[in-house]
Amino acid sequence: MGSTLAPQAFTNRSTALENITSLVKGDLATVNGVIIQEMQSEIDFIPQLASHLISAGGKRVRPVLTLASASLCGYTGQKHIDLAACVEFIHTATLLHDDVVDESNMRRGQPSANVLWGNQASVLVGDFLFSRAFQLMVRVGHLEALGVLAKTSAILAEGEVMQLMDNGNLDIVEQRYFDIIRSKTASLFKASCEVGAMISEASPEKIKALGEYGAAFGSCFQIIDDVLDYAAKGRELGKNIGDDFREGKVTLPVIYAYHQGNTEEKAFWERVFEQNNLDQRELTQAQAYLLKHKAFDHARHKAQIFATQAKKALTIFDPTPLKTALLDLVDLCLERGY
Amino acid sequence: MGSTLAPQAFTNRSTALENITSLVKGDLATVNGVIIQEMQSEIDFIPQLASHLISAGGKRVRPVLTLASASLCGYTGQKHIDLAACVEFIHTATLLHDDVVDESNMRRGQPSANVLWGNQASVLVGDFLFSRAFQLMVRVGHLEALGVLAKTSAILAEGEVMQLMDNGNLDIVEQRYFDIIRSKTASLFKASCEVGAMISEASPEKIKALGEYGAAFGSCFQIIDDVLDYAAKGRELGKNIGDDFREGKVTLPVIYAYHQGNTEEKAFWERVFEQNNLDQRELTQAQAYLLKHKAFDHARHKAQIFATQAKKALTIFDPTPLKTALLDLVDLCLERGY
Repeated sequence: MGSTLAPQAFTNRSTALENITSLVKGDLATVNGVIIQEMQSEIDFIPQLASHLISAGGKRVRPVLTLASASLCGYTGQKHIDLAACVEFIHTATLLHDDVVDESNMRRGQPSANVLWGNQASVLVGDFLFSRAFQLMVRVGHLEALGVLAKTSAILAEGEVMQLMDNGNLDIVEQRYFDIIRSKTASLFKASCEVGAMISEASPEKIKALGEYGAAFGSCFQIIDDVLDYAAKGRELGKNIGDDFREGKVTLPVIYAYHQGNTEEKAFWERVFEQNNLDQRELTQAQAYLLKHKAFDHARHKAQIFATQAKKALTIFDPTPLKTALLDLVDLCLERGY
Repeated sequence: MGSTLAPQAFTNRSTALENITSLVKGDLATVNGVIIQEMQSEIDFIPQLASHLISAGGKRVRPVLTLASASLCGYTGQKHIDLAACVEFIHTATLLHDDVVDESNMRRGQPSANVLWGNQASVLVGDFLFSRAFQLMVRVGHLEALGVLAKTSAILAEGEVMQLMDNGNLDIVEQRYFDIIRSKTASLFKASCEVGAMISEASPEKIKALGEYGAAFGSCFQIIDDVLDYAAKGRELGKNIGDDFREGKVTLPVIYAYHQGNTEEKAFWERVFEQNNLDQRELTQAQAYLLKHKAFDHARHKAQIFATQAKKALTIFDPTPLKTALLDLVDLCLERGY
């Protein structure tokens, strides 16, 4: 893990994200304009809360995927802009609701909205942004893409419910974890790519290929995110280290270390996932056990498999700078979740 | 108030709802089938939570409005079924989220979902149902109706945010209250009617007329609901008496009684709307002040004005049993919110 925490790794990551972002640069600026415009409401408080989260940055990975997918399929219209804003709105709405569900207090390096304005406001503004996402889809007017995003929204909620039900359950097997992340994360990465291809009237093969790329990339992304919850530096992560641990989320490194652990270690994991108010000492102990069993390496290996799948899915596309950037994006995700 | 609480009044109400329901009977049964089918998920817990609320009854007023509006406009297809299920899903999703926001513990005569399964599950299952609503809209495939429902969903959230922001604020004027209920309640009544007309390819005049009917009926309905929060019998209301009072919701009867009240009464209202854990004694005092100033009569008078507007809006339709039933529905709402 050590090397991936070095400053250089973060520089590489930034460069990679900048690479793909620069290829869709003008479009992304337009998307940001649409996001600002569409989160407006006569109720001033709504854009105030929404912009706290949206302006705090975020990597705009999902809208970049929509823009890049459309571009890769030769799209020349303007509908990709609204669609890209739309996937970011869906993502933002789920972040607001997830922070309520997880009782998180940090997001994107700032106090989370539920801490600043209460759970109630976060639930309602999440609903508002979700509704705006569908208004944008109606403006796009592509029923098939709309169907994909509506279905994906339901799958996202299912994934979050699965995760909530499995909270603190150390008995879950890796396959269950992969099912959860496919549903709660990979599904929106997949849809973000697919809808970009769909509005381009791309062939079914290309839509499928980009969907596979997005799904595999999304799972890779979430695994790395889960590793970083134990192993990253708080400031770069933009949220608290050990949030998953404190919230009782049983992620891939923990599943692995638990099953590899001896009786004493198993008892430790069982005890900490049953109690609240875990402190730094327990987090440090957890990190030590994770390192002892090379649980981060194990997780990164699994992420690598998804990364390979993602890159393979793009085989049918001709080599272009944009395709290269999409391939690089996956590789750099392996070094750092962003 | 006394007479409207007599058993006879409830009989009349039931009859009225039965009248219109009987006219769309077969369709409503089909809608219920679609609701049950579409709330299914591979995650068993989701239909379990959803059916707790959906099977607990509810009056299905909004789907009835969609079915009746389509029928009034001579619709002969099948799309009204999915649309009717869709408006009920949107309504159910907002109920789940509202109970989280309001920290309610009763809904439709049963413990509310947030009490039984926690706020987290209610937020996520609400999101799931909301997504399913949009999946149903995609199946209907009518982009204009989809646009109306997406916009309405945003307006519903805005209304809830307005209400949340004004929580405990006794200084709001009646107009602000009317703005809130138009947004949080009347908008979905309006949309439920409009989309029924839209899929019927009705004339713009008929769509507008049904929208006006729905909007005015919705405001009437909410005013009566707010009166009943202080004046109904808990069992019939299906939720706790005094919920709005305990939650600090400043509704029409309170605005009126507060502004009519003397110094001592104003101090009472200010004190109780600032504190939590209000008890029966304070509710009884509030009810006494409301009765003293005839605040229920005042609210009912306002509801009556909306009722008249609603009925007037239907003038352009030829007299049919269905039109009569829609007119009766408004009248009976005045006697009892359902």
